[in-house]
Order: sequence, then structure tokens, then C-alpha cells
Amino acid sequence: MLKNFKYTDGLFARYANLVCDVVVPYQEKALRNEIEGIAPSFAFANFKNAAILNKTGKIPQDGEHKGALYLDSDVAKWLEASAYSLAVKENKDLEKRIDQICDLIGQAQETDGYLDTYYTLNAPDKKFTYLAMGHELYCAGHMMEAAVAIYDVTGSRKLLDVMCKNADMLYRVFVTEKRDGYPGHPEIELALLKLWKVTQNPKYLELAKHFIEVRGVDRDFFPNEYKNNGRNDRCNNEYYVSHKPVREQSDAVGHAVRAVYLYTGMADLAANTEDKELEEVCFKLFESIEKRRMYITGGIGSTNQGEAFTTDYHLPNDTAYNETCASIALIFFGAKLLKLRRQGRIADVMERAIYNTVLAGVELDGKKFFYVNPLEVMPGVAEKVVTHWCVRPQRPGWFGCACCPPNAARLLASVAKYGWDEEDGVLYSNLFMAGELSLPSVTIEVETTYPFGDTVKYKVKKGQTKLAIHIPSFTLKKFSVSHKGELKDGYYYIDAKEGEEIVLKLDMTPRFNRANSNVTSTSGMAAVTVGPVVYCSEEKDNGDIFAFSFDSSKKLKLKAETPAEIGGFTSAADDLGKIYTVEAKGFEMVLDNPDELYVTDEYKEVKKSVKLIPYFMWANRGLNKMRVWMPIK
Amino acid sequence: MLKNFKYTDGLFARYANLVCDVVVPYQEKALRNEIEGIAPSFAFANFKNAAILNKTGKIPQDGEHKGALYLDSDVAKWLEASAYSLAVKENKDLEKRIDQICDLIGQAQETDGYLDTYYTLNAPDKKFTYLAMGHELYCAGHMMEAAVAIYDVTGSRKLLDVMCKNADMLYRVFVTEKRDGYPGHPEIELALLKLWKVTQNPKYLELAKHFIEVRGVDRDFFPNEYKNNGRNDRCNNEYYVSHKPVREQSDAVGHAVRAVYLYTGMADLAANTEDKELEEVCFKLFESIEKRRMYITGGIGSTNQGEAFTTDYHLPNDTAYNETCASIALIFFGAKLLKLRRQGRIADVMERAIYNTVLAGVELDGKKFFYVNPLEVMPGVAEKVVTHWCVRPQRPGWFGCACCPPNAARLLASVAKYGWDEEDGVLYSNLFMAGELSLPSVTIEVETTYPFGDTVKYKVKKGQTKLAIHIPSFTLKKFSVSHKGELKDGYYYIDAKEGEEIVLKLDMTPRFNRANSNVTSTSGMAAVTVGPVVYCSEEKDNGDIFAFSFDSSKKLKLKAETPAEIGGFTSAADDLGKIYTVEAKGFEMVLDNPDELYVTDEYKEVKKSVKLIPYFMWANRGLNKMRVWMPIK
Repeated sequence: MLKNFKYTDGLFARYANLVCDVVVPYQEKALRNEIEGIAPSFAFANFKNAAILNKTGKIPQDGEHKGALYLDSDVAKWLEASAYSLAVKENKDLEKRIDQICDLIGQAQETDGYLDTYYTLNAPDKKFTYLAMGHELYCAGHMMEAAVAIYDVTGSRKLLDVMCKNADMLYRVFVTEKRDGYPGHPEIELALLKLWKVTQNPKYLELAKHFIEVRGVDRDFFPNEYKNNGRNDRCNNEYYVSHKPVREQSDAVGHAVRAVYLYTGMADLAANTEDKELEEVCFKLFESIEKRRMYITGGIGSTNQGEAFTTDYHLPNDTAYNETCASIALIFFGAKLLKLRRQGRIADVMERAIYNTVLAGVELDGKKFFYVNPLEVMPGVAEKVVTHWCVRPQRPGWFGCACCPPNAARLLASVAKYGWDEEDGVLYSNLFMAGELSLPSVTIEVETTYPFGDTVKYKVKKGQTKLAIHIPSFTLKKFSVSHKGELKDGYYYIDAKEGEEIVLKLDMTPRFNRANSNVTSTSGMAAVTVGPVVYCSEEKDNGDIFAFSFDSSKKLKLKAETPAEIGGFTSAADDLGKIYTVEAKGFEMVLDNPDELYVTDEYKEVKKSVKLIPYFMWANRGLNKMRVWMPIK
Repeated sequence: MLKNFKYTDGLFARYANLVCDVVVPYQEKALRNEIEGIAPSFAFANFKNAAILNKTGKIPQDGEHKGALYLDSDVAKWLEASAYSLAVKENKDLEKRIDQICDLIGQAQETDGYLDTYYTLNAPDKKFTYLAMGHELYCAGHMMEAAVAIYDVTGSRKLLDVMCKNADMLYRVFVTEKRDGYPGHPEIELALLKLWKVTQNPKYLELAKHFIEVRGVDRDFFPNEYKNNGRNDRCNNEYYVSHKPVREQSDAVGHAVRAVYLYTGMADLAANTEDKELEEVCFKLFESIEKRRMYITGGIGSTNQGEAFTTDYHLPNDTAYNETCASIALIFFGAKLLKLRRQGRIADVMERAIYNTVLAGVELDGKKFFYVNPLEVMPGVAEKVVTHWCVRPQRPGWFGCACCPPNAARLLASVAKYGWDEEDGVLYSNLFMAGELSLPSVTIEVETTYPFGDTVKYKVKKGQTKLAIHIPSFTLKKFSVSHKGELKDGYYYIDAKEGEEIVLKLDMTPRFNRANSNVTSTSGMAAVTVGPVVYCSEEKDNGDIFAFSFDSSKKLKLKAETPAEIGGFTSAADDLGKIYTVEAKGFEMVLDNPDELYVTDEYKEVKKSVKLIPYFMWANRGLNKMRVWMPIK
């Protein structure tokens, strides 16, 4: 659906354009180490040096691999984002540079198909000896995804051929020659399935299946690798999601990105092999996330220790990890689950993730990024206290481990892939986005300002189709569609014919949300949402937000404002247009003596209103306090 | 005041007797490794083996030092507790065993006075080469305290002579021979001052002053020790409270027990040398704790990472560290501060610490102990989740690092030392306790059931004195004393004459407490106190406590009940007698579907009453949820 959809306006158009105009060029410079004052990247340099080594047999002076050993994947994700950006906006210069980079990657590939600049440059004799943390298969997977994206958008097979050669080598090593092991960081499974779909080479499907099926069977595999690599610390198989064979797993555990990339591959495999058992496993894992291990923002991963899931209902707000990549993975997973079961609750989770954590991962100007997405920030504690060291209260320009920025770029440049889906003659509208979808069977124009508007219009300009529109759960009790149809599992099925205009009206009433009381961190608190958008309160607008409590008896008031009207946002936010803010009434506790730590009667409660802004817009006005959940009376 | 005070009844009598009858014998067995099913201790065995080595020149087979390298201090603290217990209750058998143990310790001492079984047995060539973590000075300090306690109570100089010899050796090494360095774990400073007071040997005062003054001056000292001991990790001087010379310190930082033991020594030094500058520093540090870094329970240390203070107002409830030892240290510190300035707020903090965290550190039966004292526990998260691994939801019988159990024992057997103080003809009543105080000048009998009663009667049976009664801050607005007097800085000064009965009436109204809004973890929440006692809610009494919110418009109701009437407590709690419970009215949130994670309207709020019990009694009825702070509407 990537090339078939043209964004017109609204939120996703804004971000698709931002990726084209700002994010992709910025990140290219960051990867080329051309931006001062941010964490240096050696991503392109590593490829160049590997290419020189392949050509000359010699590593150039100072040419050993530098930076994190999975740095190749930054280039891969950036390439993928760039390819998608070409589908949004033509850019001949960029297309040419992509092509040159593909040449370079081909030159960095060893003759047998091996591709990983860290091992090629620094440890050629150690290939595949440390799958737990070596990231060779992870980097290969990302490069396969980039190859497929470039092929899909530009038709160029250059990188695709490189990565097929790589996949062929991996097939030989792990299947034909039966080398033990499986990826420490899953990712290649979902990538091989993509490669299989464009090439139809059954070996790639088989290799993906192999990696999925052997995972967690030999639970000594990673512990033995630890020993062989001189590590004395305990190998936590849960971290690697290798604590059990995947078919025996039912709780989302371990490193959240590892876990959900794996689940994505599993779901895609289940869909393509009609594997009902694996499908059931995927839905159990999804439910574990959806019902017990996910923040209201669609963030996942409750602790920085192992960047990991913890246990049911443990969702601390201030030490939340919620890696941007993990919520992106959740969208990938959701898209595959939708192929298995057309259930609106899956698209609900995708909405939570994209409108909140993923968008929050990118500064409004497109040049700064969050890795960790907390739901509550107290400057002075965040980043400063040992338990909060990874909670940045403002977005940095880059990271030593910069997995998130290009991941957000590739997702936001390709939202249409997740917004639309077609199967068996039914066109599924999973996410609302303004623009025109042109398929062989039908051309539909969508008009909407969602999530800052209550109307979605589908104009059938040509052809006809069965159309299934996701009705988000927040509006299931109150929505209208101008056409008769059938509501089933959160999708509204109608026959859409040429010349018709289908109008969906949604209930965008701002609402207080309550969490299950097993979530101790939100006890007695409420979070405000408007549709899928979670709101937060910032000190900038509201002063001492930790002294505030909502008044549940007062209605929340929706207001359409521009960032400029709210105040404090830079002009980078101008193209957001009218967004919703929410005015909430409540009380502020004011101590008679602000130096006291504990008081009994020595305080008053005064009436106060606060302005809530979408969570994804937080931390765009300098350092300040923020919180999503607030006490409610 | 130890031998001059005889407990009659009430809370402190209960605990003093419990220490005599249960805790001291139990801990002796634990230290002798005679209790099955608990963490093994080799504390006595190490002394025996060191004695054999000294005698024979050979370490017996399997006789190397075992257990934590600071294990000698467990014996020291137990000895000190045992000595105090003899002041509470005669026990000839115990006195004899103490004497034998003192013999053994003397035999374990090397000829030059050196005493530390770890180094003597395992690393004789490494003495004083790793002061940061070697704990030689810490263990020596504890043994000096034990020696002084035994001498004070029994008059025996046996251990005192041993420890004077040890202190003389330390003086020679660190003062005469000018060896660099200072204790990684402060403790010996306060102990040397005790030793100085009983011996009047000025070298001990000088050595204490030396260790205090050189601390933090050479900030490379511990980092260099790390290097020399093969450690590659960063040496965090803050952890060791050696980040600055002590006179430049103003915020309580680092390992909480290290910090507050140090401050105790500093305050005692300031008092005994009339050092106004150092006094000012001590009060700054106290204020840092009292106003910004202390839990309402008198717990200190906000994180398990380094068992440390963190930053102002960072007081998470579920991951609180609040080591029992740290609150004990706070009482020591308070007692020394009172010598400098007679301010009721200091005694207020001592009350917070003793009635809440210290008592909570001991199971009602005297045989189990908390190291960590959280204010909120969710079973399944506590102890299970990586960030909560040290938060035990139930008291274990012993610990590999068992510093807290004997520390609580020595404190609870000697509360009278902190409850009373006499200086310049004024008798200070800092803590209320029923019993009879017999001084040369005056004999006073105190009748009270405080903190579970509102009356304290001081009957002057003989003599007369200026009496200064601490009026706790919770009752400052409302109290009465039957005698005319002067209220100054939280103390009420009266002339107490023979035959008089002075009746103090306190306001024991149960109250909601609110914390400063800079404390994010208690935002919108209240904690209930009755006098100095903090209350908590347990699942056992109240079901789903994380779904409950107080109704601020409803009065809290005080009830006097026995543990048996509350239900679920073992007979071990019978001798607590009538305690106060509090009935609080409020609301429970009940989800229509308990499987949902987030809801908007799909829940109801039903009226509910909860029963609150004193925090110190929590976790005495099996595994269950507990919390101190609860939402308030």
C-alpha cells in the first residue's frame, strides 16, 4: 500500500513530509558523522573500510570497525526509511545516493555473501561464534528489509541481490551445514519472510521457520556462548526470549524489541503456513501485552534493566523504558496479527503505539529523538538518579546506540502500509489517514483531520470494493456510518461503490481513563485521552503538576488550538495545524510552608484548571515536569 | 540512662523483654549457625579459628574465614545487644557466655592489637590495603561499642582492654606512623568517641577526629585502592561519603548507613570539642534528611543501588530501601544532635524512625527481620521484578549480610539511652516510655501506654529536677501539661518536685498526612498517622488496597484493639496489648471486567471502609499487599 497511497494533509502527511524533508537528510548527516555536538556515528565509515579491505586485502589505517557492533543496522534502517520517503516524495538526488550506498554495501560484502562490517574488519575469525550479542543476523535482517523496501519503491534489485546472496549463505550455514544456533536479537525472521515474498525463494521461508523453531530448544546455547566468549555473568535466557521453545511461550518476557520482532516473524510465519498452533501462541503473547504489560501510550518494556518486559501489571510511570523501537515493533506485530484475525482490538493497540509512543519518539522539528518514553518526568530525578539514568527528560540529537531514530523514520514514512490492507477482495482501513488510495480495483480518497477531528470521509472515486473500516474501541459505543453495513470484531464492513461518500463519525469526547487496580503506579489516578491520543500535563502550561488532582465531577473541555496558540512551541510545529488540547478542572494542593516535607493540616486545596496537550508533543519546550496519570477526586 | 531505667509496661517494655527472651537467644543460635533453614553464619567460627591460629600458628583444616568479610561486626552488635539486655533483665548464664566470648575475642586478637578475623585468617598481608571495602575499621568500631556496653552494664573490662589495645594500635598506624586513609564504612569514629568517654584516653578522641577530618580530602584515596585491588569499576566517592571534606558537605548522600554513622561521629565530636562549624554542618545534613530525604516512616535511603540516598524529594514507595540499620543510625545521630541543640524536631525524627522503620524491622515474634522497609508492597512484583529484587515482602530469618537483626536488637534493648538525657541539671524526656528512672538527684516513675494512649504521667517519687519534656510536633497545637512551664523549641520545661505528678495530655487524633508535592510518588495521596505511628493498609484486612481511595470528608476513627481482635496475628503479638487501629472510609474502584487493563466508563466506585494497622506490624500475617500512602478524594 506504500506506493498506492498519496498523503494529502493531516497528521500522517505532516510526519511523512517531515521524514522526507528533515529526518532523512538529518540522519544521513548523523550517520556520516557530519553533525557537531551529537554522539558520533561511524556507520558509513565502517562500510567504506570493509569495502577497501575486500578490494585491497588490507584494512586502511585507522580503519577498524568503530562504534556499536550493530551499527550496520543504522544504515539499513536509514536506507529503508529513505526508500519509503521516495514513495512519499520523489527525490532523484536521494535515489542516486541510495544507489551509491547499495554499491558500497555490495563492495563491503565478502565473496561468500557474508556481510557484517564489524566481523569483516575486526573479528573475521569470530563469525557466528557469539550469536547472543554479535548481532550479525540482526544486521543482516535489517539490510534485507532495506533491500526489499528499495526494490518495492524503486524497482532496483541491487541491494536485493546482495541480500539474497547473503541469505543463501546463511541458509547454507544454518540449514545445509546444520550449524547450531539462532539469533540473539530476533529480526531476521521477519526480514527473511519479506525476502521470501518478493523473491518467492522457498529457502528464505525455510530459514525463517528454522530460526523460529530452534529458538529456546537448546537453552544451553547462549549460556555456552557466554562461556566461550569469556563472560562470567549469568546468561538470562528470558532476556533473549530463548527461555522456552516459542510454541510454549505465553507471557511477553525479555528484551521488548527482541521479543516483539520475534513475535512479528512468528505471526507472519503462522499466516503464511496456516499454522494454527503458532497463531494461537501469537495471540496469547499479544494478549499478555495488551491486557497486562502495556502502557496506555502503547509503550512496552517496564524496566531499563535488560530493556525488558517485567511482570503482569508492573508499569511504573517514571522508570518506564518504553523504547521507541518496541512500540514500532508492536505495530509490525499488530499488522501481522490482523492478517490472521481481523479484530479491531489489534488495530486499537497499533493506534495507541503510533499516536503516542512512536510520535513522542521524534521531536516536532524532526532532529531529536527519544529512545526511552516515560509517562512521568521530574527533572532532577530523571537522568540524575541512579535508577532513572536512562530516562532523558529531553530528546538528544543522536545516541551511541541509535536504533530508535531511523526506526521511527522508516515507520513514519510508511504508515500507509499499516493503515491499509487488502485481502480476498476486502479493503481494510486500519488507521485513518487523509489521502488517496489507488488500487487496481478501486480509488478512494479519504478526508479527515483525525485524531484531531471526528469525521472520516471515504470518497469512492473509481471502482468498488468491500470496505472494512476499523471502529476504534473508544468509539464503539457511539459512532455512525452513513452507509449500512455490518459491525464485526471492531470492523465495519460495507459495500463501497463508485461515486459514494461514506462518512464515519467518531466520538472524540475527552475522557478520563482508569487502569486496572493491579497497576499500583496509577492507583487513584486518571489519564485523559481523546480518541487514541493520550494527553499529558506539562509544567510549562500548568506549574506544579505534581500538586494537581482532577475533579471527576467536572467535564473535560476540548479545544482546537495551534501549537502557536498554546505557546512555547517552535515554528517547527506550525504544520501540525489545529490540534486538540483539553482543559481539565481540579485542585492544587498548596502547602502553607513549601519547605515542609510532611504536613497534616498545614495546607489548602485551591481550584485550578490545567491545559493538557497530546503526549506525543511533550518535551518540545525545554526542560520541565510532565505526567500522564494524575490523581483524580 | 541504661541501668538507671527500669521498664514497667507498654511498647518499649514489650520490645526490651522480647530482646531479652527471644531475640538475643535466637540471634546467638543464628550466629553459631545452629538454626536450620536460614542463611548460615560463620561469625563465631571465624573467631574460634583465628584464636587457634594465634595459639598454634596454624589455621585448622577448613578453618579459613567464611561469610561476608565484615562478619565480626555481627558478633559485636550481638554482644552489645546482649549487654544491654542484662541491664533490662539479669541473666547469669548469658553474662557468663558473654564473658567467654570476650575471652575468645581476646584470643583472636593478634599480639600487636590487630583484630579482624577475615584478615587474620585469609589475608594477613593485606591489612589496611583496602579500607574502602575491607571493613576492618568498621568491625573494630563495632567491637569497641560492644566493649563499652559490656563495661557499662557489667563492669567487666575484659573486652574493653582488648579494644583499647586495638585502638592504640590503630592510633599508632594512622596517627603516629601517618598511614594514609580513612574508613570506607564510617562507624569507628562514633565508637572511638565512646571509648574515649569511658577511658578518657585522649588518643581515642584524636583518632576519631583524625578519621573525620581527613575524610574526602584525598579523593583519589579510594579510587587508588580500587585500582590496587584489581577493580575496574568506577569508584563512587559519594557512596563512601568521601566526595568532599566533611565540613564542605551539606546534602545527605551515599550509602545511608555509612553517611549517618559518620554524621553521628561528627555531631558527637562537635559537641565534645565545641566545634561550631562542625555543628552547623551536622544540622545542615540533618535538615537535608528531615526536610527532603526521609520517608514518613523515618526510613532513609531511596534506592538499593548503593543502599543510598538519592536526591531531594525522590522517595519512591515500592523501591524504597530504608535499611533498618539506617533508621537506627538516624536515632544515634538524633541523640547526638540533641546534645548540641535541644530542639523537639530532632526527637520528632527519632520517634518517626523508632516507632515505624526500626520496629517494622523485627517480626512480632522476634525471630525474623527486615533489612529493607518499603512503604508499598505488591507480591509478585516485590522480590520478583529485577528493580525490586531486594524488596522482601516477608521477613527472612537471617541474611548473608545480617547487619540489621543485631542492630535492631541493640537499639531495642537500649531505648532508654535515647529516651532520657541529663545535662546541666536538666532532665530531658525525649521519648515516652513507661518505667522508673532512678538518678542520684531524682526518681521519676512514668506511666503511659503511648503511643497507644494520650496520657503520660511523670510521678516524682524522690528528689527534684528541672524536667524538659519533648512535646512532639504532631501535638504542638493541642496539648496540656498539669504544671506551669515554658515551651521552647518543642520542649516543655518545668520544675518537678518530690511528690508531684505531672500529667501530659497529647492529641492522638488520627490524621491524614500529605507530602510536599515535589515527592512525586505520593502525589494525590495521604498517609494516616496517630501520634508518631504511621499506619498502613494490608490486603489481609482490606482486600484490593490498590483500588481504594480515602474520603477526605469522613473522619478517621480510632479504635483500641488487641492483635487477636484484629485477627490473623500469632500469639507472639499478644503482649502488645491494646493498640490503636484506624477505620477509614472511602471508595473502591471496581472494574466491570477485571481483565481489562484500561477503561474509561466501565467501572464503578463503591463505598468502602478499611482498617489501618500500625506500619510496624505489617507482614506478620503471611504474604499480602501493603501500602502506607493511599489516594485521597
